[in-house]
Amino acid sequence: MNSPTFRNWQSVQDEVLRRIHAREWPPGALIPNEADLAIEFGCARSTVNRALRSLAESGWLDRKRKAGTRVAAQPVAKATLDIAVIRHEVEEHGATYGYQLISRSVAVPPAPVSGTMKTRAQDKLLNLRALHLADDAAYAVEDRWINTSVVPDAAAEPFDVLSANEWLMQHAPYTHGDIAFSAVQADQQDAEVLGIAPHSALFAIDRVTWDNAVSVTKVRLLFAPGYKLRTQI
Amino acid sequence: MNSPTFRNWQSVQDEVLRRIHAREWPPGALIPNEADLAIEFGCARSTVNRALRSLAESGWLDRKRKAGTRVAAQPVAKATLDIAVIRHEVEEHGATYGYQLISRSVAVPPAPVSGTMKTRAQDKLLNLRALHLADDAAYAVEDRWINTSVVPDAAAEPFDVLSANEWLMQHAPYTHGDIAFSAVQADQQDAEVLGIAPHSALFAIDRVTWDNAVSVTKVRLLFAPGYKLRTQI
Repeated sequence: MNSPTFRNWQSVQDEVLRRIHAREWPPGALIPNEADLAIEFGCARSTVNRALRSLAESGWLDRKRKAGTRVAAQPVAKATLDIAVIRHEVEEHGATYGYQLISRSVAVPPAPVSGTMKTRAQDKLLNLRALHLADDAAYAVEDRWINTSVVPDAAAEPFDVLSANEWLMQHAPYTHGDIAFSAVQADQQDAEVLGIAPHSALFAIDRVTWDNAVSVTKVRLLFAPGYKLRTQI
Repeated sequence: MNSPTFRNWQSVQDEVLRRIHAREWPPGALIPNEADLAIEFGCARSTVNRALRSLAESGWLDRKRKAGTRVAAQPVAKATLDIAVIRHEVEEHGATYGYQLISRSVAVPPAPVSGTMKTRAQDKLLNLRALHLADDAAYAVEDRWINTSVVPDAAAEPFDVLSANEWLMQHAPYTHGDIAFSAVQADQQDAEVLGIAPHSALFAIDRVTWDNAVSVTKVRLLFAPGYKLRTQI
């Protein structure tokens, strides 16, 4: 076989992708094992392994420990998003972070909130509304409910200097979370806080974090117009 | 030490998270190695490894092969998004997928498009506008540019039955891509295609895919109001 040699895992990845796209290896097909590919490509087996792992992560290949590696029947690209504390996100863009607490209250939440958080309908939760700023301009408005039966220390926190976004990351354990991204029209109240026209299109992140079966906190973040969440595939 | 035994990796993960949150293991601290933790927890080393890998994936720990495992200085939660072909996304929700080509033309793109795609200003590209439907209702409108010097086969494709979204996934190799999520106000044209009020807030996905240094395609997908992109952390 008159195969070129492959010096690095990226060139192996390119060749494997080429074969997938040329249908030399059609969707669902079992591909040769790593040892055989290493011989064919004239490279280390670890180089083949690195290339196949990368292609599996981006959804082109399905790898099963015993059944071998197959071309994905329906390729799904996978993107990884970093969900950082907002202060870090602002500072990473080279801006100065600011924070303002708008309101802090203990209240029975609306039914959709207690439903989502799986708290009892009559349970009081801690509600915080706050503004995050970048270089003194509104960056995002936060509306948060904290389950103080799970995070009792939060009841004593004023959240007037340190945001709940940051405090919870350091103090409240969670095992997993649900996130949804969407676009919403600014209502009158949010428009005033953000200093924008009502009905502006806002990028929304809704997140509920859980400590096993009990909810820790539910937050909606509405970002000022122009916000983009970026990632790579 | 009067430690309980840990039967599964989830219970080890819970205990490690508890120590991180209780500041027994503060941000930046080196934690004990896997072998010592396995002895302390009374479980297999592989169980500890599974728990620490999971915590590294979700951003609580930094693992370095030689330097050991440290508590992350700035915890960043990581979420994985599946970027599926739209037809599969619609069908996964149990709906019937539909597709309509709105326009197909070969044209010199606006400067921001050729700039993003790094094509020469005078290069003609293939432009497609199309509507994706779920149960006969508008689901997303697609505005796409294809670099036909990289994907010459696309020039012969009518895209009247099979969407470019799907065709490219099967025929056009790419090595990586840039994705941005944002919220935009519907313009008159998009509002008409989607059958909604002008200035409605729409969830936008902008994606450029690359074959190494050359762009393959650039697409903007605008989703009908109510769309949510969901994931877990």
